[in-house]
Parts: sequence; C-alpha cells; structure tokens
Amino acid sequence: MAVWSERLAGVRGVLLDISGVLYDFGPGGGTPIPGSVEAVARLKRSHLKVRFCTNESQKSRGELVRLLRRLGFDISEDEVTSPAPATCQVLKERGLRPHLLIHEGLRSEFDEIDMSNPNCVVIADAGEGFSYQNMNKAFQVLMELENPVLISLGKGRYYKETSGLMLDVGPYMKALEYACGVEAEVVGKPSPEFFSAALRAIGVEAHQAIMIGDDIVGDVGGAQRCGMRALQVRTGKFRSVPGWAHLP
Amino acid sequence: MAVWSERLAGVRGVLLDISGVLYDFGPGGGTPIPGSVEAVARLKRSHLKVRFCTNESQKSRGELVRLLRRLGFDISEDEVTSPAPATCQVLKERGLRPHLLIHEGLRSEFDEIDMSNPNCVVIADAGEGFSYQNMNKAFQVLMELENPVLISLGKGRYYKETSGLMLDVGPYMKALEYACGVEAEVVGKPSPEFFSAALRAIGVEAHQAIMIGDDIVGDVGGAQRCGMRALQVRTGKFRSVPGWAHLP
Repeated sequence: MAVWSERLAGVRGVLLDISGVLYDFGPGGGTPIPGSVEAVARLKRSHLKVRFCTNESQKSRGELVRLLRRLGFDISEDEVTSPAPATCQVLKERGLRPHLLIHEGLRSEFDEIDMSNPNCVVIADAGEGFSYQNMNKAFQVLMELENPVLISLGKGRYYKETSGLMLDVGPYMKALEYACGVEAEVVGKPSPEFFSAALRAIGVEAHQAIMIGDDIVGDVGGAQRCGMRALQVRTGKFRSVPGWAHLP
Repeated sequence: MAVWSERLAGVRGVLLDISGVLYDFGPGGGTPIPGSVEAVARLKRSHLKVRFCTNESQKSRGELVRLLRRLGFDISEDEVTSPAPATCQVLKERGLRPHLLIHEGLRSEFDEIDMSNPNCVVIADAGEGFSYQNMNKAFQVLMELENPVLISLGKGRYYKETSGLMLDVGPYMKALEYACGVEAEVVGKPSPEFFSAALRAIGVEAHQAIMIGDDIVGDVGGAQRCGMRALQVRTGKFRSVPGWAHLP
C-alpha cells in the first residue's frame, strides 16, 4: 500500500473508462465487471472528483447511462465525456455537414446537425453497420470531396464483448484512410483535447488526475502524453484477473 | 512516334493488366474499353510476347477468361498470371491452412487446399462478402494464432466498375493489419515475385518488358521497381480519355 499511496500522491481526480472497466457489453445489455459497481460507489464517497471518460460510440450518452444505472452504477449523464457530443461541437464550429457511418443507436446525438450535401464523413463503431455497401458509400463521399475530411470517434482496435473480441472503429478508420489517401481526425481518446475536456469538467489539472482504463494506447498512453497518471486494469481486453484490487 | 520507338527500344514482351485496361467490370459481366479488343489482337499479331498480369480476385482464372472471350478478347487461361494460383503454391510450400475471406467466385481455386484448423488468413477482394461478421471472424482467427499470418491477394485501394469506384481488398487488408498488429504478405502486383513469375512464363527479362496498367502503384510503380518499363493508361481508375493510342 505504501507504493500505491506514493503513486497516488496529490491525485484529486479520477477519469474512468467504461467498456471493459465497468462492464462488458453483451446480451441483455452487458455484465458488470466484478467489484466495479462497489469501486465506483467508493470513489464517489471519497474526496476524489470522478469523471467517466469513454469512447463508447454505439449508443447515445443517455442510452449508455440508462444501461449502466440498470446494472447498478451510480452515474448520471452530466458526469460522462463521450465523443459524439464533442464531434457535434467540432462540426458546428467548422461548418461541416457529415455523412454518418455510425450505429443506429448513436444517430440521435446528431439530431441537430445539418446533413444536407455532406462535406465530410464521420465514422464511429457501427458494428454490423460496417457493411461493404456502407463502407463504399463513405469512401465515395470522401473521393468526391476536394478536401476530404474524415472524423473518427476514437480509433480503438477492438473491444471485448461477453461473446469475444470484436472489431472497433479503428480498423475501419484505417481502411478509409488507405482507400482515400487521407488522415482521419480522431475525436475521443487518445486525443489530448478530449482528455482536457474531461478534466475541465471536474476542475482538475492533468498532474492531479489519474486515468483508469483497459486500453494501453487509448487510455494509458493517451493520458500519460497529457501529463496524467494512468492505471491499466486487467479486465476487458485483458481476459485475466480483475484489476480493481489496486484501487485506493 | 520517334519518342515512342526510343522508349520501346529492345522491348520483347508486354504485360497487360486486365481490369480498367481491357474492360470495366459491371452489369452483365462488364464492358470492353474502346480499342482494347483490337489492341490485344494487334499485340498478338506482332513480334511481342504477351502475358496478362492481373490482381483479379473476385473470380477464378477460368471464369475471368470465359468472360473476356465473350467480350471479344483473344485470351486463354494459360496466358494469365493471377494471385490465387500463386497463393495456393505459397500455402502448399509453407504448410499453411487458410481461413478464407474471399468472394464466392474465387473459392474453386482453393479446392485442393486443406482448410481444417486454420493457421493463417487469406484475404481477397470479397466485395459484399466484406461484412462486419466476416471481417470479425477473420480477425478472431488471427488473434488466436501464436504467429498470425495474413496473406492478401493484391493491395489495391479501389477499382472502377461501370457504376463507380469500389473499395478493393487493400483497405480491408489495412483494417486487419491494424486490428491485429500484423503486416500482411501481398501475393500479386506490386510484389516482385509476382511480376517475375509473369516474365518467366514468357521467357522475357525485366529490362526487355513493359507493363501496361491503370494503377500507378500496383502496375507502374511495381513494374519499375522490378526493372521493367511501364505505361499507365488513362482508362479504368482514370475516368478520362483512353490511353490506347500510344500502343506501338
């Protein structure tokens, strides 16, 4: 414990990844990872500020929070930083009208966005929506633009459902990058802007915060590059023993 | 013409790409590119050796040749170098048992290959077969291998059908590379082994040969790196004037 109290010295805020850390998605909505409901409750009783920082992009923030509350988590919508609202802000600021390659569950997040005559493509974890036809349509939209803009909600390689590992948005982002000769703009972890937004929401500086996640690139690497500490749990993508025992 | 006769000095053999050079694939099988039937006939009447060198991997070599003959081309199966037979040779030599992510039309090429208990993934232009489910299955097979081997039949970004540009195998190869952290082995253009096999078949050295294609990377760049000359037509991916006027 001595080691941990040193490592956590000065920490005032905790950013928590959701998928693979709090729960694994699966039939009936998913399963909480053992110990995680209690760990979140303990964190919220502590002196630490808590923010949920997720790349979830199959469902809207509202739907995600309803699911997590049903699983027993103490969480509300305004405690969550997720890529879709951040993307909508980018689209509005830059006058971008997206062609969406996303999961139906996320579509409501874009209700207020002008999608006529698209001048960019927004890609998110579309699951079964990543059909050849849908990918080809996104490709054709990009190829017809003079300055193709591709925005990706996260760039994860894969995630774990209860049934096994599943391809995330990253591989499909790479496919469109290669096909069109463009580089995607990533909204979500590990983008520094995204971590900064999560920290601003709880009024904590990077050096006072720790990110807890299961993704060595998106969570741990991204947070460290922003000056935060990071802790990688051994759940989710890790398929081994739960890592929650290390929490303060 | 003086320039062309200089550029072609010493040429004894011609490698011809097929899709986008001889024809565009589309409804009813496709459409010959204007002038191409006559150009092939002239080449074959000339002193030049002719070899068809294609990355076509939606259909078997037999089916491709039947289609081209129906469109009026003078071509036979033993004049064609294509990736599937070359891949079968690699699989046999290395004791590899593939999980196939390919178009149904190509499956017969692998009739004699052992596919039990796969220890590699072979990916080719699967068209609509690039569903999320099929991609995820290939991903899972690779992730379960200790030494994941991914073989890709070509790595083209896209090709042209009469209806428009279509994603080729390359983007999907990149997706699996990123998801699994592997590098694919490419069988087909622009791999030097593939060009060499085509040249051996007509007994012509690289410096005596010219490659004619519509792909600046797969055809032109690949051939030049092998010491061949290359000519890029403005048909197929180029969507402008036919380039056949420059043939000798």
